[in-house]
Amino acid sequence: MAQLITDRRDIDFVLFEQLDTEALLKEERYSGFTRKTLDLIINEARTFALKELLPVCAEGDRTGVTFENGEVKVPACFHRAHKLYLEGEWTSLTEPVELGGQGLPPSVARAVAEYMVGANYTCVNYANFGHGTGKMIELFGTPEQKKLFVKKLYTAQWTGGMLLTEPEAGSDVGALTTEAVKNDDGTYSITGTKIFITNGEHDLADNIISPVLARVKGAPAGTKGISIFIVPKYWVNADGSHGARNDIICTGIEEKMGIHGSACCTMSMGSKGQCRGFLLGEENQGMKIMFHMMNEARLGVGFQAFVHGSVAYQYALNYARERIQGKDLTGGKDSPSVPIIRHPDVRRMLMWMKSYVEGLRSFIYYTESLFARAVLACTDEECTYYKGLIDLFTPLIKAFSAQRGFDVTVQAMQVYGGAGYCKEFPVEQQVRDCKITSIYEGTDGIQAMDLLGRKIVMDGGKAFGDFLKQIQATIDMAKQKDDLAGLALQLEKAAGRMGEVADILSQAVMGPNVKQAFAHAFPFLEVMGDVIVGWMRLWRAGVASEALAKGAKAKEQDFYRGQIKTSQFFIETVLPCTMGKLESIRQMSKAAVEMDEAWFGN
Amino acid sequence: MAQLITDRRDIDFVLFEQLDTEALLKEERYSGFTRKTLDLIINEARTFALKELLPVCAEGDRTGVTFENGEVKVPACFHRAHKLYLEGEWTSLTEPVELGGQGLPPSVARAVAEYMVGANYTCVNYANFGHGTGKMIELFGTPEQKKLFVKKLYTAQWTGGMLLTEPEAGSDVGALTTEAVKNDDGTYSITGTKIFITNGEHDLADNIISPVLARVKGAPAGTKGISIFIVPKYWVNADGSHGARNDIICTGIEEKMGIHGSACCTMSMGSKGQCRGFLLGEENQGMKIMFHMMNEARLGVGFQAFVHGSVAYQYALNYARERIQGKDLTGGKDSPSVPIIRHPDVRRMLMWMKSYVEGLRSFIYYTESLFARAVLACTDEECTYYKGLIDLFTPLIKAFSAQRGFDVTVQAMQVYGGAGYCKEFPVEQQVRDCKITSIYEGTDGIQAMDLLGRKIVMDGGKAFGDFLKQIQATIDMAKQKDDLAGLALQLEKAAGRMGEVADILSQAVMGPNVKQAFAHAFPFLEVMGDVIVGWMRLWRAGVASEALAKGAKAKEQDFYRGQIKTSQFFIETVLPCTMGKLESIRQMSKAAVEMDEAWFGN
Repeated sequence: MAQLITDRRDIDFVLFEQLDTEALLKEERYSGFTRKTLDLIINEARTFALKELLPVCAEGDRTGVTFENGEVKVPACFHRAHKLYLEGEWTSLTEPVELGGQGLPPSVARAVAEYMVGANYTCVNYANFGHGTGKMIELFGTPEQKKLFVKKLYTAQWTGGMLLTEPEAGSDVGALTTEAVKNDDGTYSITGTKIFITNGEHDLADNIISPVLARVKGAPAGTKGISIFIVPKYWVNADGSHGARNDIICTGIEEKMGIHGSACCTMSMGSKGQCRGFLLGEENQGMKIMFHMMNEARLGVGFQAFVHGSVAYQYALNYARERIQGKDLTGGKDSPSVPIIRHPDVRRMLMWMKSYVEGLRSFIYYTESLFARAVLACTDEECTYYKGLIDLFTPLIKAFSAQRGFDVTVQAMQVYGGAGYCKEFPVEQQVRDCKITSIYEGTDGIQAMDLLGRKIVMDGGKAFGDFLKQIQATIDMAKQKDDLAGLALQLEKAAGRMGEVADILSQAVMGPNVKQAFAHAFPFLEVMGDVIVGWMRLWRAGVASEALAKGAKAKEQDFYRGQIKTSQFFIETVLPCTMGKLESIRQMSKAAVEMDEAWFGN
Repeated sequence: MAQLITDRRDIDFVLFEQLDTEALLKEERYSGFTRKTLDLIINEARTFALKELLPVCAEGDRTGVTFENGEVKVPACFHRAHKLYLEGEWTSLTEPVELGGQGLPPSVARAVAEYMVGANYTCVNYANFGHGTGKMIELFGTPEQKKLFVKKLYTAQWTGGMLLTEPEAGSDVGALTTEAVKNDDGTYSITGTKIFITNGEHDLADNIISPVLARVKGAPAGTKGISIFIVPKYWVNADGSHGARNDIICTGIEEKMGIHGSACCTMSMGSKGQCRGFLLGEENQGMKIMFHMMNEARLGVGFQAFVHGSVAYQYALNYARERIQGKDLTGGKDSPSVPIIRHPDVRRMLMWMKSYVEGLRSFIYYTESLFARAVLACTDEECTYYKGLIDLFTPLIKAFSAQRGFDVTVQAMQVYGGAGYCKEFPVEQQVRDCKITSIYEGTDGIQAMDLLGRKIVMDGGKAFGDFLKQIQATIDMAKQKDDLAGLALQLEKAAGRMGEVADILSQAVMGPNVKQAFAHAFPFLEVMGDVIVGWMRLWRAGVASEALAKGAKAKEQDFYRGQIKTSQFFIETVLPCTMGKLESIRQMSKAAVEMDEAWFGN
């Protein structure tokens, strides 16, 4: 049967062959699970996603969110699916049971989410998005606040949000003007307007708990004067019951290119002077606290983009196998028409998509596995090691997935030809939905600045060095295998050049050529992403090669051979382009910086 | 004042400085025009486009086309604009006056069309699309047919179409099953269904004249048994009056990602057994005749894609100048917030867009200028020379513009950030509208096969050789200039490598590795496009450098300096990536071809 939404065989390959997730189950933290229970959970996710979420995905896109008389209504068809999603306890899977979660390893939670997000991103995002708000309260709230909010948010009985952006403060968060004034009872009165607020208002939950960035009257300008407040739609009394409706209202929603099922709200606070919130943590600590949620959200957005690409690839692959058109190029003029997967150019597109989709899956699951390792770490040093890699990878997962995930959806549309452009087929929606991922949670350009300006150089470049060592370990492994040694050498060359270029750029960032360096930050993020995908592909090929050497069953051999061949495709056709891009960055052209504004014309 | 839709200064640069269009005006064919009249025509086009077409562009997208009771209605707001467009005689500008045109040089007609198509592609396409049908009748029709149809089509009193695709015959036109049976009166009865028919049915014209590919009963299989018929919606009597309604009806329209104002119809012929058409040319000559229209349409689609990109770039440039966000990277912490055009990453995006938009403008106008030269040619050899280049460039203009035009629209959205994803701002529509260009009129993959399998090798590679000589002439010119010699050397290296790789690929196409070669056909089309843009950029830089040397006015200096700096940007940052891609193609990886279908998984 055709794989829908995602490729289960590949998920299992990553979880249990590439990453050895079973080793985690020997740890006490995960001792409640066996390989078999994990299989069952993923199976159940698949069943639920295909039965309840997928059937209302296109309808949610068509219907969209409506706004009338201050009320936001999600697509009506989402209500049942959302209710069942909560009843099935699919939210906050990695949290402990006592807080409403299931205590799953993070990488396994991603496997579940591939089905859920793949089947209907905008629908499940209402339920999933509150976790970040809950996590900030868990980490920085008072015992009372934790008791009142965390479990409700983790189980999505109440949903959360993320109120950062203002009309004049987007990428420059520090420019925000929403103001907070302390009241006698310890709460704060908040006044201001936030825009582009995903799920800021909707009709799926009893209460909506909004974390809001604002400046306490008199606080310093810029990011260091920002505090974070929790502003519930309905005030929450000490006994957990709802109090009065708070003065936070939706004044409009955006019409967007895609994610039509997702409410994108303008939120006005204090228009009647009655918006109350409570401070989370201490005053002026808002950015530090919010970054906990932002990092989670960035990984989430990268994952979302990967899933859109992965779903689109599966659809395109199935279509290419079924669509009969044209003859085999070497079949002769009386040969029958064949499925388009036989045509070299269609294969090129499919192999390219498969390379990236699987490479990103490995990268994302690998990074999730680092979270488990950081928690299980025996020493601070070990924990710091894993967290360093996570910090380094976060902007890459966000932005590189956003770029390549979108490119894959576009390529999938191309495989479909004219049908791909029509709403009757599913990839059209994936293209439109995916596009937002390069923009929200910090544009990809912002991520590139984070990568070059902070992450590569942090701790004297330690995490970047650790990352290079990890790649080298995979290269050394592959060099031992006759069938992979040539590919290993090509990756080694690219990784080495990447290291040199990183040195050049990060030194330039410190000096007078800082602008010139940052003009190449985004291309550098792209080459680093490509090298990582090359790394993941070589790693995959190594695992597959070993499985074949050990005598895999006939049916399994197909999968493993496909892994090796796809890795060969990526390293032989994509990495040479990456080398060219590295050369482009190495030259560090000054042209973009030297261009006078007037020279652009008017 | 901000340039809207397109950059007039740059259009003038291409027409009158890079291409010397004024030289054409000395020829008798164009003696009715002066530089001044051309300026006036382009000015008038701008005024009309901004006043009548642009204001109904977003509304046309929102309203879309409707289908009810067999009737197709275009957005109501299009009617007035369409009527005025016809009254202004903006259709078929290059045709002679006696046939309803204005006799303009083709490159100047493109300048006019930049405004029209840029302001509202789907609206003007109803009027513009009939030209191709008219041209086929002009070339292959009987004197009576010409008299009845050509002028009506050129003036868009009647509109045309292009009925090729069937559910089982898309890229493989030869698989079509629409059937024609000759009647006693010399007409043919036609039965069949066509899909994805742009403007197949609508309410903007008195009559719709559909050229239809069909197979006369008993004709050979494949493309060689295809004939072309003209099927009017209302039969046209010998005196030009309308006869009976023909049995060609629209049975449905597609819901698409974009171009919502454009009717994409399923057309059923002969469902009552009463569809009549007349043969154009001779039986079984359908493909040869239709290729006249297809080549025109391919150039038109490439132009459309370029325009979407160009419009999006202009919007993004204006936005980047107006949007205040963040501080200058070297401005210090108390410096004011600045327009985002100051940020290196935004400049990188703008320069990249400007490089391609202007490069494509030059390439397209240059190719149009070859049409004029072919017509004016004194010898057959000269004419063949120009037509060879046009044939070679056609798949590139279609597919490379479609690729980079779309990429530019996506990049423009990124410059806008969150606003770009919202329908309130205009780039969102440009992204959706542009995407179709990689698909219709032969997918970009089909164009790549045409380029590699036919165009590069035709006449023993003569046109490709002529093209390389043209590039070399520009390189030699630039080598003479101190400020451009370095850039010239980089382009020379890329062009040389491209020539070598073309040899490798075109030899492989002839042998047993044909599939392997075609797996690299599309990347080769991309590198050829990049080298051409590099060529156009170096040519531009040369013209600008000379203008500066001759002492351009202060205001003009800005423009010329921008030209040189943008060319530097392209050659220093994009061409190294192109070199990497050339290396990738040169290796001609077998992986995509060797991948067994089963290895893709299931």
